[in-house]
Amino acid sequence: MSHDAVAHTHRLHDGDPHAAWLGITLVTAGEGRAEVTLTVADHMLNVHGTCHGGVLFSLADAAFQYACNSHGPVAVAAAADIDFLAPVGPGTRLRAVATERARRGRSGIYDVAVLAPDGSVVAEFRGRSRVLDRPPGPADGDRR
Amino acid sequence: MSHDAVAHTHRLHDGDPHAAWLGITLVTAGEGRAEVTLTVADHMLNVHGTCHGGVLFSLADAAFQYACNSHGPVAVAAAADIDFLAPVGPGTRLRAVATERARRGRSGIYDVAVLAPDGSVVAEFRGRSRVLDRPPGPADGDRR
Amino acid sequence: MSHDAVAHTHRLHDGDPHAAWLGITLVTAGEGRAEVTLTVADHMLNVHGTCHGGVLFSLADAAFQYACNSHGPVAVAAAADIDFLAPVGPGTRLRAVATERARRGRSGIYDVAVLAPDGSVVAEFRGRSRVLDRPPGPADGDRR
Amino acid sequence: MSHDAVAHTHRLHDGDPHAAWLGITLVTAGEGRAEVTLTVADHMLNVHGTCHGGVLFSLADAAFQYACNSHGPVAVAAAADIDFLAPVGPGTRLRAVATERARRGRSGIYDVAVLAPDGSVVAEFRGRSRVLDRPPGPADGDRR
Repeated sequence: MSHDAVAHTHRLHDGDPHAAWLGITLVTAGEGRAEVTLTVADHMLNVHGTCHGGVLFSLADAAFQYACNSHGPVAVAAAADIDFLAPVGPGTRLRAVATERARRGRSGIYDVAVLAPDGSVVAEFRGRSRVLDRPPGPADGDRR
Repeated sequence: MSHDAVAHTHRLHDGDPHAAWLGITLVTAGEGRAEVTLTVADHMLNVHGTCHGGVLFSLADAAFQYACNSHGPVAVAAAADIDFLAPVGPGTRLRAVATERARRGRSGIYDVAVLAPDGSVVAEFRGRSRVLDRPPGPADGDRR
Repeated sequence: MSHDAVAHTHRLHDGDPHAAWLGITLVTAGEGRAEVTLTVADHMLNVHGTCHGGVLFSLADAAFQYACNSHGPVAVAAAADIDFLAPVGPGTRLRAVATERARRGRSGIYDVAVLAPDGSVVAEFRGRSRVLDRPPGPADGDRR
Repeated sequence: MSHDAVAHTHRLHDGDPHAAWLGITLVTAGEGRAEVTLTVADHMLNVHGTCHGGVLFSLADAAFQYACNSHGPVAVAAAADIDFLAPVGPGTRLRAVATERARRGRSGIYDVAVLAPDGSVVAEFRGRSRVLDRPPGPADGDRR
């Protein structure tokens, strides 16, 4: 195939300011899949002293974005859900592994498992993507 | 009533490192409700140059956490979902308004609308909370 | 307004074989809202002797379909989620009340509360709709 | 192992009035998995002449219930979501295949693909289960 999903995903990651700010690293990429990591910093904790759900979501969302854009055409998130299965303490190195569950027309469904170093699942994420005709912009109106 | 939901929520917000790091401000609080704001910074953008879904989730999640903990007993997020309705550009001041949809036993459902300055909805979030017997910790096992 | 949402929704309900089969009655309708009822029959029970989640979903989904189609253009369900808050016994008369949470471009979000006779919430449903260019059909391909 | 998941699941199916009423057949069962089938009847159609979302949900939910109860302890549905990917016409023989995505403490996450005869995915379902101390009943209060 002429499309190089690995190189394409690394370019996406290199141009992602939010991933850099959070300290998200891209580990592996491919057609419809991606794996990223992040180490939980003290400023990522919530009122209970455990990792904020928004950080777990952001990590899973990064893996999802890379996986759903790996095919080439610009895809955006239409919706997502997350289940929090276990609390995560500071200093934990988390992995998020995204796989493609289904693709039909412009719609795609991607599952992301967020894993602790011992391989146990701390969160499960499911993202819904939609391929656009053209890149989205701040003044575009309906993103979905 | 002896429980002061407003003061309690402000104490929660003051002890939330992640909210401070993101620049989230608590605007109003009450029994089962909360409103927070955030201005989209350049490091919150995704590969498309619009606000990252993880930031919209984190803002909504903050409002949800304050609302579900406003009653006093410690509540944690069990699950959440979000629908992204419109892209958001840098510099936008967002508001997230959380309201209580249902509460039954230890379970609660909270809806959060994320709003642009013109009042239009850019994202809709629904969070599921669960009241704990005791505060959660990193070594607690099942958070749910 | 020339569009009569009430009459339109009653026509939709009269032409809905599944609603008739389940014994769903349309109580009220309007722009972006609908209320339906159903009495739990013995053949709607699950292995635990309580009302099957699929029946609660179907009742909420009926209210959602009427509410999202009340504006005139043909809308279909793209996705939905449901939280089960309390078990329901046989003979219970349930009400499902659908309201419009957000509408943007072709996308809509509708919330449906499923209520016991005493007004307590037994399930909360959120549906995502999408307006089509033309009516869907079995050979249409992508429904979303 | 002394627990026979296959025999246990067949007993559950045999005592499920709703599955019998819908015409759901149990094809295979095992620890954390189940496959069921249903043929779309005319009374399962919606206002558009395609299979009602509530029927697709009920079929997926049946597979989910069998899979999450296959381990022995009584588990109930706490929540579920479904994405509708393609319309389904009358007479279609559908298959729903449930697999276990994660289990932690009393919580479980199960994914169910609903498939057309050609193997294409028409809906994706994710169910959240919770193991109970004792069987649920109509007067039990909080099911979750």
